[in-house]
Amino acid sequence: MLDEKTVHELIDSSQVARLAQLDNEQAVHAIPFVFARVGEMLYSPVDGKPKRHAALSRLNWIEKHPQVTVLIDHYEDNWERLWWLRLYGEAVKVNSTDPHWDSATLGLKKKYPQYDRISMFNGEPTMLRINVARWKYWAAQA
Amino acid sequence: MLDEKTVHELIDSSQVARLAQLDNEQAVHAIPFVFARVGEMLYSPVDGKPKRHAALSRLNWIEKHPQVTVLIDHYEDNWERLWWLRLYGEAVKVNSTDPHWDSATLGLKKKYPQYDRISMFNGEPTMLRINVARWKYWAAQA
Repeated sequence: MLDEKTVHELIDSSQVARLAQLDNEQAVHAIPFVFARVGEMLYSPVDGKPKRHAALSRLNWIEKHPQVTVLIDHYEDNWERLWWLRLYGEAVKVNSTDPHWDSATLGLKKKYPQYDRISMFNGEPTMLRINVARWKYWAAQA
Repeated sequence: MLDEKTVHELIDSSQVARLAQLDNEQAVHAIPFVFARVGEMLYSPVDGKPKRHAALSRLNWIEKHPQVTVLIDHYEDNWERLWWLRLYGEAVKVNSTDPHWDSATLGLKKKYPQYDRISMFNGEPTMLRINVARWKYWAAQA
């Protein structure tokens, strides 16, 4: 089992994660997302990247189904170096009144220089916050 | 919208995908997996890579919840080149009596030279087959 510090390092060094959640018809939805970690929480902004028409539905689905799963993994041709980290948590939609809003936006700016050119928010500043409750880790080599 | 040929090319050129599905407690589960495409079906072997104790539960969950979602995506620092492809389909556990078994194993061997060293099957040869019913595509640049 990994200690918390190593889990945090794996999370922080990953540029992208995949969010899996239930939609309002109980179907499983999955999407890649960018994020910054603050303590045991992941923050992901509704940013200025082009969106599919219905892409922001996921912010509404969490009202009915807040339990989400986040997958962070490493793939390469050398299968001895594969690993994955699965985070289970509760998702909530937050705005700038969130107590960690400033840490989260600072973390995002630091992690993603892309936000120098692409706006971090699209309309009313909103983020998805995931409160990580537990995790599972697997690696090809223990 | 992408044509079918381009969708197939994106699928075939991706070494890894992420499977999202429901477990028996209605929780969302997500895992990276390797696969080969035969027509509109993805085949993923229960191979010789080390497994977590409960990792193969996913083969049982599909009996109760066969509807799964597969996410294939491309991430890089240049956010103008991001894309994702989400496949919706039905998963089924198959063995060597499957009509496309030989094509699938051949496709896997061709796509993953790793199977020269790691056995493609672990015990009774078994694969997860996903019958893709529909897909959604997003790209930062249309």
